[in-house]
Amino acid sequence: MTSTPGSSSPTRERLLDAAAELFYREGVGVGVDTLCRTAGVSKKSMYQLFASKDEVLAASLERAAPTYHDLLTPAGDDRSPRARMLHVFEQLEHYSGGPEYLGCPCVATAVELKDPEHPAAVVARRFKDALTGFFQEEARRAGAPDPELLARQLTVVFDGSSARAVVQAQPLDGLAVATATVLLDAAGIG
Amino acid sequence: MTSTPGSSSPTRERLLDAAAELFYREGVGVGVDTLCRTAGVSKKSMYQLFASKDEVLAASLERAAPTYHDLLTPAGDDRSPRARMLHVFEQLEHYSGGPEYLGCPCVATAVELKDPEHPAAVVARRFKDALTGFFQEEARRAGAPDPELLARQLTVVFDGSSARAVVQAQPLDGLAVATATVLLDAAGIG
Repeated sequence: MTSTPGSSSPTRERLLDAAAELFYREGVGVGVDTLCRTAGVSKKSMYQLFASKDEVLAASLERAAPTYHDLLTPAGDDRSPRARMLHVFEQLEHYSGGPEYLGCPCVATAVELKDPEHPAAVVARRFKDALTGFFQEEARRAGAPDPELLARQLTVVFDGSSARAVVQAQPLDGLAVATATVLLDAAGIG
Repeated sequence: MTSTPGSSSPTRERLLDAAAELFYREGVGVGVDTLCRTAGVSKKSMYQLFASKDEVLAASLERAAPTYHDLLTPAGDDRSPRARMLHVFEQLEHYSGGPEYLGCPCVATAVELKDPEHPAAVVARRFKDALTGFFQEEARRAGAPDPELLARQLTVVFDGSSARAVVQAQPLDGLAVATATVLLDAAGIG
């Protein structure tokens, strides 16, 4: 596979980093003028790299989501599947307690766009599925009776806890870990 | 308590109904021009009734949320607390399967506003707390060991399921009910 022209240019990276931060902090409604001004990129340069703001939004989530995923999921280690799954909820408790936390960027993007076919909503769905895939693989290793169901249930707990942190604007105070623990216990994952 | 002047005027009601529908369908970024045009209300009339768009947003959620709450929670009946709590998730499964479903309006409002002190975010929090309050009262009646914790956990499952329906743009297919059932079983609520 050859790389897209300009796919790793400093201008592209600066634009996408600024876009990811701005869309997360202010929402997907941020306009092209604000975006380009914040990124220090001319509109002409932006439109040389991307066909539309929608494409910038999708590419910025594509660029930011792996970092978010890596913050949540453990690197390869020798802990048990249970500990590795709970790690995700411990990380969520940690990050969602800060004043900068505005929810899962994938869920926020999907909720704000209100269009499941938008290119950024497609990216959001793929990264949520990656988290579910992590849970499913760990649940399978742990011998859960239905790893696919447990993985979807843990994703529900993750997203619901994240939403709660936003709505309440308070730390989760152990709620995410406690709720995930109930599901793991019920699946016999000790 | 005396009523606010104009609090039940037809103009006010028309504006708030249009606002609730428009903000839900398109997001909190909808402008005053679009809002007034859709509602068939002059900007002058709007500003006679409300100091700002933010106030319209808060009042429209205040007006719409009880209807949403009533769609989810059962009326007084003689079913068990377990059945009454599961009813909420059955209703969520039902409504979230439709093409018009764009998530819990309270969570969407909070996620989009990104400001927990916004008057509409305060309304959103209050109505989410009302759902948690419903769960807590039923959990208490059922003799749950920790009704307050179970109520927060069920709210997490509700919001996470709702978020999933938006991200995946697919029916929940029993996931919300199944996940709530695990929590009720674990709390010994048969």
